Amino acid sequence: MTHEPAGTPLLSIADFESAAEKRIAPAVWDRIQGGAADEVTLRWNQEAWRDIRLRPRVLVDVSAIDARVKLLGQELPFPILLAPTGAQGLIRPNGDLEAAAGAAAAQATYMISSSASVRVEEIARHSGGPVWFQLYVQKDRAFTKDLVQRAEESGCRVLCVTVDSACHGTRDREQRLKSQLQARELPNFCGPDYLDPTLTWKDIDWLLSFARTPIVLKGILDAEDAEASVKAGVAGIIVSNHGGRNLDTAPSTADALPFIVDRIGGRMPVIVDGGIRRGTDILKAIALGAAAVQIGRPYLYGLSVAGADGVSQVVRLLKKELELAMMLCGRASVAAIDRSVLW
Amino acid sequence: MTHEPAGTPLLSIADFESAAEKRIAPAVWDRIQGGAADEVTLRWNQEAWRDIRLRPRVLVDVSAIDARVKLLGQELPFPILLAPTGAQGLIRPNGDLEAAAGAAAAQATYMISSSASVRVEEIARHSGGPVWFQLYVQKDRAFTKDLVQRAEESGCRVLCVTVDSACHGTRDREQRLKSQLQARELPNFCGPDYLDPTLTWKDIDWLLSFARTPIVLKGILDAEDAEASVKAGVAGIIVSNHGGRNLDTAPSTADALPFIVDRIGGRMPVIVDGGIRRGTDILKAIALGAAAVQIGRPYLYGLSVAGADGVSQVVRLLKKELELAMMLCGRASVAAIDRSVLW
Amino acid sequence: MTHEPAGTPLLSIADFESAAEKRIAPAVWDRIQGGAADEVTLRWNQEAWRDIRLRPRVLVDVSAIDARVKLLGQELPFPILLAPTGAQGLIRPNGDLEAAAGAAAAQATYMISSSASVRVEEIARHSGGPVWFQLYVQKDRAFTKDLVQRAEESGCRVLCVTVDSACHGTRDREQRLKSQLQARELPNFCGPDYLDPTLTWKDIDWLLSFARTPIVLKGILDAEDAEASVKAGVAGIIVSNHGGRNLDTAPSTADALPFIVDRIGGRMPVIVDGGIRRGTDILKAIALGAAAVQIGRPYLYGLSVAGADGVSQVVRLLKKELELAMMLCGRASVAAIDRSVLW
Amino acid sequence: MTHEPAGTPLLSIADFESAAEKRIAPAVWDRIQGGAADEVTLRWNQEAWRDIRLRPRVLVDVSAIDARVKLLGQELPFPILLAPTGAQGLIRPNGDLEAAAGAAAAQATYMISSSASVRVEEIARHSGGPVWFQLYVQKDRAFTKDLVQRAEESGCRVLCVTVDSACHGTRDREQRLKSQLQARELPNFCGPDYLDPTLTWKDIDWLLSFARTPIVLKGILDAEDAEASVKAGVAGIIVSNHGGRNLDTAPSTADALPFIVDRIGGRMPVIVDGGIRRGTDILKAIALGAAAVQIGRPYLYGLSVAGADGVSQVVRLLKKELELAMMLCGRASVAAIDRSVLW
Repeated sequence: MTHEPAGTPLLSIADFESAAEKRIAPAVWDRIQGGAADEVTLRWNQEAWRDIRLRPRVLVDVSAIDARVKLLGQELPFPILLAPTGAQGLIRPNGDLEAAAGAAAAQATYMISSSASVRVEEIARHSGGPVWFQLYVQKDRAFTKDLVQRAEESGCRVLCVTVDSACHGTRDREQRLKSQLQARELPNFCGPDYLDPTLTWKDIDWLLSFARTPIVLKGILDAEDAEASVKAGVAGIIVSNHGGRNLDTAPSTADALPFIVDRIGGRMPVIVDGGIRRGTDILKAIALGAAAVQIGRPYLYGLSVAGADGVSQVVRLLKKELELAMMLCGRASVAAIDRSVLW
Repeated sequence: MTHEPAGTPLLSIADFESAAEKRIAPAVWDRIQGGAADEVTLRWNQEAWRDIRLRPRVLVDVSAIDARVKLLGQELPFPILLAPTGAQGLIRPNGDLEAAAGAAAAQATYMISSSASVRVEEIARHSGGPVWFQLYVQKDRAFTKDLVQRAEESGCRVLCVTVDSACHGTRDREQRLKSQLQARELPNFCGPDYLDPTLTWKDIDWLLSFARTPIVLKGILDAEDAEASVKAGVAGIIVSNHGGRNLDTAPSTADALPFIVDRIGGRMPVIVDGGIRRGTDILKAIALGAAAVQIGRPYLYGLSVAGADGVSQVVRLLKKELELAMMLCGRASVAAIDRSVLW
Repeated sequence: MTHEPAGTPLLSIADFESAAEKRIAPAVWDRIQGGAADEVTLRWNQEAWRDIRLRPRVLVDVSAIDARVKLLGQELPFPILLAPTGAQGLIRPNGDLEAAAGAAAAQATYMISSSASVRVEEIARHSGGPVWFQLYVQKDRAFTKDLVQRAEESGCRVLCVTVDSACHGTRDREQRLKSQLQARELPNFCGPDYLDPTLTWKDIDWLLSFARTPIVLKGILDAEDAEASVKAGVAGIIVSNHGGRNLDTAPSTADALPFIVDRIGGRMPVIVDGGIRRGTDILKAIALGAAAVQIGRPYLYGLSVAGADGVSQVVRLLKKELELAMMLCGRASVAAIDRSVLW
Repeated sequence: MTHEPAGTPLLSIADFESAAEKRIAPAVWDRIQGGAADEVTLRWNQEAWRDIRLRPRVLVDVSAIDARVKLLGQELPFPILLAPTGAQGLIRPNGDLEAAAGAAAAQATYMISSSASVRVEEIARHSGGPVWFQLYVQKDRAFTKDLVQRAEESGCRVLCVTVDSACHGTRDREQRLKSQLQARELPNFCGPDYLDPTLTWKDIDWLLSFARTPIVLKGILDAEDAEASVKAGVAGIIVSNHGGRNLDTAPSTADALPFIVDRIGGRMPVIVDGGIRRGTDILKAIALGAAAVQIGRPYLYGLSVAGADGVSQVVRLLKKELELAMMLCGRASVAAIDRSVLW
């Protein structure tokens, strides 16, 4: 580890988390780590993956592990994407650019957040790897349309529309030290009051009418909404509870995932995020039917520890753990992973 | 926050609780916080709400949230009532009057307790908002009848009869420092030995024979007793275990509520109290069939922190949290909340 | 409390336990408190009662509570017996005599233990109240027969035969400081190696052939053994896991009780011990079909705190708690307690 | 205890564990104690045995306890084997030889690990008691074949083939201080990169083609793999999750055991390891259908405390606890233990 004193190896995401806590200012730390209200869903997200049991298998030739997946027209070397978060610029001055570069260096797709401190074009240009764009449909629809088109033109391959945020949740922890946070520009927003509680499926129709890249809806937890997503004609969904930051006591994504996968029945890919901290978590998500997972906080830890390189390290660490888990479960390829991997 | 030093924001009921603990004398604190025996039911009350999972929904227009409910002939702007407690006068000299005024300022109905340190008429007159009266049917029935009539005449709109207190529970925590509590007058009681263990449904008939306001029975946990309440002809019931203060290891009110709602089948409104600390708890109670919730300890925390204003703050905080929870669950009105909100 | 400094009220069994720990030498304390091995069953005993939920009922006339029960020809004013333990003499020089006297003063039946430091006759004579005798069938059968007859002649009304002790359990905690315990005489034993692993139902037949008082088998946890007890012709059984001291991970007595009650089907009375610390625990045991409960460690705490008077206090405290629980559950008599009291 | 200061009795495996922690260097301790990743399976292994409840029985003659079992042509005086571990030489210079000698002195079968610091022949010769040999099928098959034949010639009675290690798991705890471990020779390995991820059932066929001793597969957790083991023609299996060191969140062996026993249906013996710390755990394993159990870490604790004698002490302690548990459950012989021992 470049920036870590000798003798403090960073062997797990938990190690990166501990190292990050020492580097990040408390107000930023609370912003990153905090969840909604009593952080019940935040805890459930991690616990639910942990409580799922894996079924090891023996005497299968796993000398050639192939973690590749196809997703929305892309071929990914492994099913880990970097979730959109708005905190990169709070962690390091060039955090948005470094995170995107670190993802690219590790061959991971990076989702540019609308909440980034840098314009989408600049991040996309700097990245050098595959990028998607996360969109809040803002009250100013003209601004929104222009933003989408700028993202597409700058090379974003997928438009990921956040649909679980009619409002911000009750984020007590984040609020507590908020006054210590320096104000920052949010160049991809039309203004401070950007969330639009009038958003409905008609707005998705509107986006579909002009978007030239596939649209994925982020923030689906309910099977009815998953069904509606298929009906709406989008290309995919992301099962997410906004990292436990919006509605406390919403179910963990691990609990919600199988219901949604069953309802979708293969009609579109399902991505999942929330609480992924181990390669075994990723294996479980795929076993439950996810096409890929997203990580958020883990790569922010890496960013704080070693910039772009730290982001790459985190991605590679999880990829390595995933491969070991596949080997020990006797599954040499992602295609060979199904629910029989679970106990 | 008026009385709070800068930098200590009061963002949640838990924040008010911490702030209150610093202000309130230990003997009074134990009186307020304590439950029966080992406080198992006290803990269950909060845990049971927390363990119920909510089902977020997306892409519903929730720009106009309407939390109004109709209850026993009243229209309430939101379904939060202030439960009767006898501790206001222990917290602040004019606690009873301040709490009632704070409720009114926040447009919440206030239940005047028989255990108040001030006569019911004085609280009702001082309040300026809607008030109900909580009654212990005391051994002296003539005193009891006179008290009811005084309450009615002073404007109390509903008579809330406590039926779960044939005796006080085993309140070890409250007893421990009781000798440090200053004696106080209880002007709405006929004497120190007021609880009447002979109380039966015949006494409810007797109350119904002369009461001019609707009667609600407080302290129902059993579906048979709910059925008997309908038969008796009262106007409603409050599902309550006396804030965990009477019979330890009685079920949480969240666990009891759906059984009682199912038995009542809409024949009368069901109110619930016990362990409500978040707007999400209120949403869950309504989803399970409650017409409204009561809060007790939370507004006492507010009272200790900032008098009437603190009471208002607590009410508004919970109302705000309820509205956010409604938005994130895609329910723009209370009428739109049903059990499908629950996971 | 006679021996307690002012300001330290003893309101619950837990208070007596804390006070006792300060008075009792560590080696004796470990002897009393310890269970088998990892003390899993010891913990389960208390937890299992706590986890059973009670169903409060309202508007029942409970002004006259009657806790009397009939048991093996005796009428008891309340269903609490004092279990045999061998530790009284370790706590106080005259502990066996004081405990028996304290039980009598509180009108509770006292079981004289074979492990007492004093001869059974002396305890029986000193008691002044109803006593039973707990018997280990010792390797020396002639000694055993003589002991039974001495107990009967000295007034013991019931012979309680311990059948769960083919050997002592793995009592690590008790062993740890055992070397600090002063040797003491055990006048009711034929020698140090008294437990008999050859004991079978034939030995019960043998006891029945000459005993003139009813025989109760202590230490039944299995329904088959309960059935065999009926077949053997004994007068009753005690559901017990030896206070969690014999076989660790045996079920709690609260878990075992209903299976045994169902199998017995009223053919004989069932007594239960293990983990009773609250009046609500007693109510639950009776609701599950127990005729009475036994307490062990709780009265030893009382003994250490205030001698005979402390024993009486503990008994009265539990009796009072039982009465309050009966009131809040709307059951004025023990006969009115059935499984509908449980949630 | 030879090496333990007076006053610190070693009454349980937990006592040996505490004593060992004081003697063993941190890097070695982490190597021994550590599990995979978050050590979830490591914890589950112990918890799962603990959570199984035993059913005590009474009035059975258990004066003559017979713990003998027949296993793969051997008669064992009790069903406890010593699992292969590679840590003996890290604990004490002659740890491998001392552990084998201690096992022999206690009449327990000892499994020589491929990871031992000493050649298999030397351990077998030094032991003086029955030994088995644990084999990793190494990339160098000629080396592997030669190793098997050397083991057989040196008297190993059973060949125990580890099949759950296509790779090492994510062993964060072990890695953390690994740089402090002195390099050591592993004379039974063909080189540092010995694990072979191409291993399949065909390699088992190959081993069967020349092995002259019975082959047992170690590391089966899945019923399908158990069935395949029968089909492959091996002599037995060991239900194991590698002591929680390979795939984290694999099920505990206590959870997996009954499914595998049911699938095997008596066609071959099933041994189990993982989390055995008490005689009651052994009784439970046998009740679930295991022919015998293996212990690993417990005897390493004994080794560190008192060398060969410490190993013997640990074995005898568990044997004694097993006998007490059999007595209290009314089972005088291993043949009398079936699932009816479980609650």
